[in-house]
Amino acid sequence: MTNHLYPVILAGGSGTRFWPLSRHLYPKQLLRIIGDETLIQQTVRRVLSCASPDRVFISTNPGQADSIRVQLGEWKSDLKDNYVIEPIGRNTAPAIALVAAELLRRDPEAMMLVLPADHVVTGEKAFQAAVTLGMQLAEKGHLVTFGIKPTRPETGYGYIQPNRRTTLAKKGRLTGHPVARFVEKPNRTKAAQYLKGGNYFWNSGMFLWKAATIRDEINRHQPQLAKAVQKVHTLMTSGADPRQIEAAYKKVPSVSIDNGVMELSSHAAMIPVGFGWSDVGNWSSLEEVAPRDKAGNVVSGRVVDMDSSNSVLYADRRVVATIGLTDMVVVDTPDATLICPKSRSQDVKQMVEILKQQGAPEHLEHVTVFRPWGSYTVLEEGPGYKVKRVTVNPGGRLSLQLHHKRSEHWVVITGTARVTRGDDVLHLQIGQSTAIPVETPHRLENPGTETLHIIEVQNGPYLGEDDIVRFQDDYGRLGRAR
Amino acid sequence: MTNHLYPVILAGGSGTRFWPLSRHLYPKQLLRIIGDETLIQQTVRRVLSCASPDRVFISTNPGQADSIRVQLGEWKSDLKDNYVIEPIGRNTAPAIALVAAELLRRDPEAMMLVLPADHVVTGEKAFQAAVTLGMQLAEKGHLVTFGIKPTRPETGYGYIQPNRRTTLAKKGRLTGHPVARFVEKPNRTKAAQYLKGGNYFWNSGMFLWKAATIRDEINRHQPQLAKAVQKVHTLMTSGADPRQIEAAYKKVPSVSIDNGVMELSSHAAMIPVGFGWSDVGNWSSLEEVAPRDKAGNVVSGRVVDMDSSNSVLYADRRVVATIGLTDMVVVDTPDATLICPKSRSQDVKQMVEILKQQGAPEHLEHVTVFRPWGSYTVLEEGPGYKVKRVTVNPGGRLSLQLHHKRSEHWVVITGTARVTRGDDVLHLQIGQSTAIPVETPHRLENPGTETLHIIEVQNGPYLGEDDIVRFQDDYGRLGRAR
Repeated sequence: MTNHLYPVILAGGSGTRFWPLSRHLYPKQLLRIIGDETLIQQTVRRVLSCASPDRVFISTNPGQADSIRVQLGEWKSDLKDNYVIEPIGRNTAPAIALVAAELLRRDPEAMMLVLPADHVVTGEKAFQAAVTLGMQLAEKGHLVTFGIKPTRPETGYGYIQPNRRTTLAKKGRLTGHPVARFVEKPNRTKAAQYLKGGNYFWNSGMFLWKAATIRDEINRHQPQLAKAVQKVHTLMTSGADPRQIEAAYKKVPSVSIDNGVMELSSHAAMIPVGFGWSDVGNWSSLEEVAPRDKAGNVVSGRVVDMDSSNSVLYADRRVVATIGLTDMVVVDTPDATLICPKSRSQDVKQMVEILKQQGAPEHLEHVTVFRPWGSYTVLEEGPGYKVKRVTVNPGGRLSLQLHHKRSEHWVVITGTARVTRGDDVLHLQIGQSTAIPVETPHRLENPGTETLHIIEVQNGPYLGEDDIVRFQDDYGRLGRAR
Repeated sequence: MTNHLYPVILAGGSGTRFWPLSRHLYPKQLLRIIGDETLIQQTVRRVLSCASPDRVFISTNPGQADSIRVQLGEWKSDLKDNYVIEPIGRNTAPAIALVAAELLRRDPEAMMLVLPADHVVTGEKAFQAAVTLGMQLAEKGHLVTFGIKPTRPETGYGYIQPNRRTTLAKKGRLTGHPVARFVEKPNRTKAAQYLKGGNYFWNSGMFLWKAATIRDEINRHQPQLAKAVQKVHTLMTSGADPRQIEAAYKKVPSVSIDNGVMELSSHAAMIPVGFGWSDVGNWSSLEEVAPRDKAGNVVSGRVVDMDSSNSVLYADRRVVATIGLTDMVVVDTPDATLICPKSRSQDVKQMVEILKQQGAPEHLEHVTVFRPWGSYTVLEEGPGYKVKRVTVNPGGRLSLQLHHKRSEHWVVITGTARVTRGDDVLHLQIGQSTAIPVETPHRLENPGTETLHIIEVQNGPYLGEDDIVRFQDDYGRLGRAR
């Protein structure tokens, strides 16, 4: 392995198609969809066979960064300085350009292995072999793509046709070829032809190139974008005000790396790969990668079923009772349930749009929200009150804060709490409680080694998360509402 | 109308077929299935056109009596002494025999209009007309049944064939005939013949007879049952110990009035009725009585639908998102969701049996449980803690009690609370709280005119409802766990 390979994980995706398990602020990469780890955890673990963890870069946005940091806590110190945070989403080309700029600042020889955070890959050795061959091509100045052999006439993916008369590199049975052409999402007839013909491959959205190559190609094909991103990068490295950075980033055009660079470049190459791959693009595609029971069902959580078959049945702690379902999707979460035939899975996106238009909070986030210090779960909200379970990790502490509009009561249910309340400092054990009046500066800490859980009862005429004044915060959130 | 008509509402049914909206301890008659009132409220209101409220009798069991009393609060003083509570369920014949004995004690001329609490009837005038004609027949010593003209080859009901060559009574277009025979639930072929032939009627489970007539017929056809029930009634009226009454009731054979009396009697008569009727026996039958939208769906609660048709979609406060469902049943409650095709609605009963075998509490009761003083809702349970919202009606108060294993914290969220805690009496307003240590006698009261809501956080190694010692109770529950 080279000393210059940097895996770059694109973790900025939104969460519409796996709703209600995913939410706008809690997208697919954060979900435990298959196996014991979330998709982004699996993605990081996958690349550790190619590079050490301190070489892994995460490209994301402010809304997801906290949750991702929590999930990647295992590599906390390695990843510490490797988060590249876009103030707002601007599609893949700017995200990649920004990481390339940062990598080139640190290592002019840097090579980037770009991977979406929310895909499933099976077959670690085949993956490593493809990366190894890809590095040979990237070294020669190619923009390397990884092509997946189609197994169905899929109309939701882009396709790549390689020029197989030319072999750019070869290792074992694995070969690399120049790209003859990229094809955008085809219609059904075309997709069937591609499947039959055998010389079209799915564009997996994974890339490998030298940072300098992609910088040059972006400069060539998207000069305006390149200039705008360069300006943002300069602001970031000079410690500019976040609002100034955001204003600059707003000027960056929103372009995908496929349309904006790959399709225009004469350096694109493709390796037909041997590993298993799925972008798990919707609930129906889950059955490609998740284990199925004898009746063909993908089942998770507290499902009690009679006679269902070939269905995706996802529950959590609530009981989901299903009888005689065929080819259906049922997904249950604490505040929302989805039921549709598998054939309508792609319409979940539209459902989320409807919820958004209705102002339904269920499109945006879960009842459980992750924070750098832990998480909270809203148990109930009603007129003038809100009840939360608050979880604080060992050593974690919330900001020193006050609220103008609400009082709070805290009852410890597990662990021990250190509470600052005005000028007092209290230590609370299980079953002990305290009240925080309106306008009183307060802070909750977990000084112990066990996780702290408290029940918080809020009272007041306004209970929004933005009624908060922060005086001190361990996580740099002064002036932010969350 | 006679001075001797007593409507008798049978409200002892269990709640399996409308799960998860109904529960074992919260059966169908307590549900707001159609319209603004629950089925038992509608049933009481229906009979008020035939008799004054102090004539209405309710036959039920201890598990449901509290909830029924709360729902029938509008007629609280009228119904006060009219609850006939069977210690355990023993099918319809003993329940009817027990009420007949009590009515005969109060009024030897009593006439009983027996109605299940959980049926839907439409057409008040047609109902009154049928009762009026039925009273003529009952006066002559007939056991009157009400036959419903079949609209489909239903295999789930019993059928009645009248002897139409003999007319026992007539009023307008309404006639009464002797019963030629009763037929138990037929198979599909038979049911289709009955539908086509036109001389078979559904047995609606409603009856009208003189209390003395049914007593004599039960004596004749079920002498053992009659004797056992008479013994129970004597114990009840002599103020015997509840345990002694229960022991005696356990000896009563479990027999239905149809099999045990009606089918054997030579006095059975039938009136083919003109009112609309449904026993709403399962979720699928709901569409016979509930309003449907343009696509044929019965929709309730927070359902967000795209393109579904002919489905029953029941939600509450959570979001239920449905896409492209056809002929499906979806029922969502705070702790359980059911999804099945309409054609499998009758299998819900079996699902409940499975849950019961698994020891799942969701078969038994709702997260909201009604009590004489109000209700409580379990918001969350976890190891060592439980969070409830407790609702106390104006003027209501819980028993003076203590717990051996748990401490409690109360935070007022609406209304005002009067709290007895050991020797102290506290008055708490919104946002105020108190802690009740283990082993401390305490009591919660609502002295105000507004409903009181508190959040209760319980801590302790054991949090069962049966960890309670009652010192004083307004509702006669000393020694009971609930």
